[in-house]
Amino acid sequence: MERIDTQIVVVGAGLAGLAAARELTAAGREVVVLEARDRVGGRLLNHDLDGVGVVELGGQWVGPTHTRVHAWIRELGLATFPTHDTGDALFEDRGVLRRYGGALPRLSPVALAEVAVAQLRLERMARRVPAATPWEAPHASVWDGTTLASWLRRNVRTRLGRAFFELVCEGLFCAQPQEISLLQFLAAVRASGGLEAMLETEGGAQQDRVVGGSQLLAIRAADTIADRVRLGAPVRAVAVSGDRVLVRADGVEARARRVIVALPPTLAARLAYAPALPGGRDQLAQRSVMGAVAKCMAVYETPFWRADGLSGQATCTTGPVRIVFDNSPRDGAAGVLLGFLEGDAARRLGALAPDERRALVLEAFVRLFGARAGRPLDYVERVWAEEEFSRGGYAGFCVPGALASLGPHLRRPCGRIHWAGTETAEAFGGYMEGAVLSGERAAREVLAAEPAAPVPAAQGV
Amino acid sequence: MERIDTQIVVVGAGLAGLAAARELTAAGREVVVLEARDRVGGRLLNHDLDGVGVVELGGQWVGPTHTRVHAWIRELGLATFPTHDTGDALFEDRGVLRRYGGALPRLSPVALAEVAVAQLRLERMARRVPAATPWEAPHASVWDGTTLASWLRRNVRTRLGRAFFELVCEGLFCAQPQEISLLQFLAAVRASGGLEAMLETEGGAQQDRVVGGSQLLAIRAADTIADRVRLGAPVRAVAVSGDRVLVRADGVEARARRVIVALPPTLAARLAYAPALPGGRDQLAQRSVMGAVAKCMAVYETPFWRADGLSGQATCTTGPVRIVFDNSPRDGAAGVLLGFLEGDAARRLGALAPDERRALVLEAFVRLFGARAGRPLDYVERVWAEEEFSRGGYAGFCVPGALASLGPHLRRPCGRIHWAGTETAEAFGGYMEGAVLSGERAAREVLAAEPAAPVPAAQGV
Repeated sequence: MERIDTQIVVVGAGLAGLAAARELTAAGREVVVLEARDRVGGRLLNHDLDGVGVVELGGQWVGPTHTRVHAWIRELGLATFPTHDTGDALFEDRGVLRRYGGALPRLSPVALAEVAVAQLRLERMARRVPAATPWEAPHASVWDGTTLASWLRRNVRTRLGRAFFELVCEGLFCAQPQEISLLQFLAAVRASGGLEAMLETEGGAQQDRVVGGSQLLAIRAADTIADRVRLGAPVRAVAVSGDRVLVRADGVEARARRVIVALPPTLAARLAYAPALPGGRDQLAQRSVMGAVAKCMAVYETPFWRADGLSGQATCTTGPVRIVFDNSPRDGAAGVLLGFLEGDAARRLGALAPDERRALVLEAFVRLFGARAGRPLDYVERVWAEEEFSRGGYAGFCVPGALASLGPHLRRPCGRIHWAGTETAEAFGGYMEGAVLSGERAAREVLAAEPAAPVPAAQGV
Repeated sequence: MERIDTQIVVVGAGLAGLAAARELTAAGREVVVLEARDRVGGRLLNHDLDGVGVVELGGQWVGPTHTRVHAWIRELGLATFPTHDTGDALFEDRGVLRRYGGALPRLSPVALAEVAVAQLRLERMARRVPAATPWEAPHASVWDGTTLASWLRRNVRTRLGRAFFELVCEGLFCAQPQEISLLQFLAAVRASGGLEAMLETEGGAQQDRVVGGSQLLAIRAADTIADRVRLGAPVRAVAVSGDRVLVRADGVEARARRVIVALPPTLAARLAYAPALPGGRDQLAQRSVMGAVAKCMAVYETPFWRADGLSGQATCTTGPVRIVFDNSPRDGAAGVLLGFLEGDAARRLGALAPDERRALVLEAFVRLFGARAGRPLDYVERVWAEEEFSRGGYAGFCVPGALASLGPHLRRPCGRIHWAGTETAEAFGGYMEGAVLSGERAAREVLAAEPAAPVPAAQGV
C-alpha cells in the first residue's frame, strides 16, 4: 500500500475531476487525482479506427453555448469541426420510411401542431424552474410527482406526437418517459438553454465535434497535471478524522485536508464513508440513477449515404435503434453510422450477446440506408451499463419525487467531502459542459474553505 | 485477515440471511454468515426500557397470514401478544381533533365514499398484478409510469380522501405518493393479501407483537447456528473465479462455492463484484431505493390514555408525526407512545438535532393526548436513513418505471451470486415474512444448484 500526502484528493479523472484538479493546481494547491480505470476521461472514450480516424464511444458533442468546454478546447490546443448535418434526414415510423429536409419529420398536421403546442408549454414551464435549484420551482412537488409519461398522456393525444416526445426523452436522458419526472425534465431543459438548444445539431448541443475525439479534452487536461493523476486506483473508502481526510484506493492511500468526489451520485454512494454520510445525502444518492445507453457504430469505406443526398441522421419509432447520426471522422476517410440504443432498448439489447446485438443494429441500418449498410468493414460499440465505473449513461438523473424532496443534497458538501460530476452541475447537467462547471465549482468550494495555501506537503504520485 | 473455507457464504444476518443460513444448515451444508453490525437482526432492533420492558426500534408486527414468521415463533420458543387495539382512535386534521370507534375516522360522507370507491378500484387492479412477477401485469408499463400521486389526483377529489391515501402510502412505504408508481403500490398490495390486510391491526399486518421484542426472532435463530455467524464483518467485495467465490469483509475472507447476498438491493450494489455484475442487475439495484422512517417513542409511567378510553392509535394530517400507536410492553409496566416519521417528515426531521426532533414529536403527542404526554420518563428513537447498514426503512421499493422494465433482475441469480432480502420476496415484500420467505427461496436455489453435499470443508468461525 503506497501512501501519499497531499492537500486535496480528487476521486475520478473524468472531466469533472480533472476540472477540479486543474483549478486547484492553478490556485497553487497540491492535488492527487485517483482514477479507477487505467485511462482518464470517464464517460469520454476515443476509439481509433485502424488509422482511418477516431470515433467516440462515449460523450462527443459540443454546443455553441458550452463556453467552458470551448475554452478548454482553445487552452488545450484542440479544434472542433461541425457534425455532419447536410442532406435529408430520415424518419421511420412503423416500417414506413420518409425523408425530409427541415427540422421536423413530416408528421400529420395534427401531430405537428400538437408537438408545437406541447413543446411551447414545456418551455414555458421550464422557465419557471430555477436552473440550479429546481426544488424551488412553484409546483415542484406536483411536477416532481408526475412522470413525463403521465404529462404526455394528458397533453399529447396523437400517437406520433407521443412518439416524438418519447424519442426526445430517450435522446436526452437515455430513459423512458415513465422514469422521468416532469420536474427533472423541465430542470434539464431550463439548465441547458431550452429544448431547441438541446435537440438541434446546427446551433444546438450536437453542433460540433472535437478533432481527434472528445476524450482528448481529458487526455490533454490530464497531461497538464500528469504527475498528479494516479490511474488504476479505484477508491473504496473515505475516512474523515478531525481536519484530515484519508482516501483509500486499491494499492494507494492518500491523506489530505479535503476530498472532491467527482463520480455520479449513485457511484459516489458506493464508497465506504467514515463517519457515515448524513441520511438525506445517502437517500438522494439512492435516488439518482444512471440512464441506459449503448453507442453502436458501423464503419464503411465511405459515407455512401451522402451521395444519395442523405445526412445520415434518422429517427425511428420502430427501434431498437431510434436515433442515428453520421459520425464519420472529419476527413471522410471512412463512413460511420452511429446508432443509439437508449432506455429500454439499451437494457434489452444490452443483455444480448454482442453478435445478436450487432445483427439487430445492422438490420436497422439496412432498413434506413439500404443493403450496403449491412456490410460494414468494422463495427464498434459500448454498452455503458456494463461499465463497472460508469454503470450507465449519458448521466444520472433524479427519480420522481427525489428532486423536490432531497435535491439540495445533490451538491451540498458533507464537511470535508465535496461533490462534483455533471449530475451536480448548476447548468448543463449531463453534458461535458456540466462536468467542467461542476468540477470548477467544487474547486472553488475547497478554495473558499481552505483560504490559506499551506506549504505544500505533497510528494509525486 | 482471517481466512475461512466453507460451502456457502451469506452476507447479512437480518431475518433473510438467517433464514437462508438455517435452511442450508438444516440441509447439511456448511454456512458462514458475515454481518456488518455487532449484532444480528438488521432492521429488527430491541431496546430495553431499563427493566420495565422491551420496545422495538425497528420492525415489530406480525400478521395472521405471516405463516413463516409464526412458524419461527413456535420453533424458537417465542410467543406473541396482541397489539393494544381497544378504545377510541384519534384523527387530527388541520389542528382539529376527533375521536372515533370504527375502522375509519369520520371523514365527510363524500370523502368516505370516495375512499371506499378508490380502495375498491385499487384492490381490483391489484388482483390483476401477479404477486411475484408484477412486470407481467396487463398494463405494467403504463401503471409503472404513473405515480400514485398522479393516480390519486385523477381518482380522488376531496382533500380528506387524498390525505387518507397519502397516510396509507407513507404508512406502507415510508415514502410519498409522488415517489411510488401505481404498479409498485399494486404489487405490494397484491403480494401482501390486500389493502385491508395491510392496514388493519386486528386481523391485519399489525395484529401481534413478539413477547420480548421482535429482534428475538433473529437472536434465537442466530443462536441455533451461532458458530456460523460472524459479527462486525462488513462485506466489501465478492469475487467469483471458476467454481469458487471469495467474499472479503473487514478482517475476514471467506471462500465458498456460492454466496447469498441478503441485503436491500441498493446496499447489495455497494459491494465490489469481480467480475462486475450485469448492467441490467446493476441498473435495477440503482432503482430500488429505501423508504425513510424514524420510529420515535415516549415512555410514561403508565399508558394513561387508556383510562380515557383511548386506544393510543392516531392518524394526523397535521404532522410531523402522522401515525401513532400504543406500543407499551405487554404487562403494562410502562406506557409507550410510538410515533412514526415517514417519507418527507422523516427526511426533514431526520436532519434536525435530536433535541429539536424530540420536541416536535412530543408537541404532536401533546396535541393528541394532552399535557401529560409532554413529560415522558424516557424518549427513544431511531432514524433509519442514518443507519449505515440499512440506509432507510422499512424496506426498499422500485422507483417509477423500474419494475416494468428491470423487475426480473430483482432476484435472478448472477451465476454463483444469489439474492435474498425482503425486497426480493415473492410475497409479503417489506415485511418480516417476506424476509424469511426470500431467505428460504435463495437457500433452495443454492441447494438446487449444488445438489450434492460435498464433505464439509468448513472450519469454525
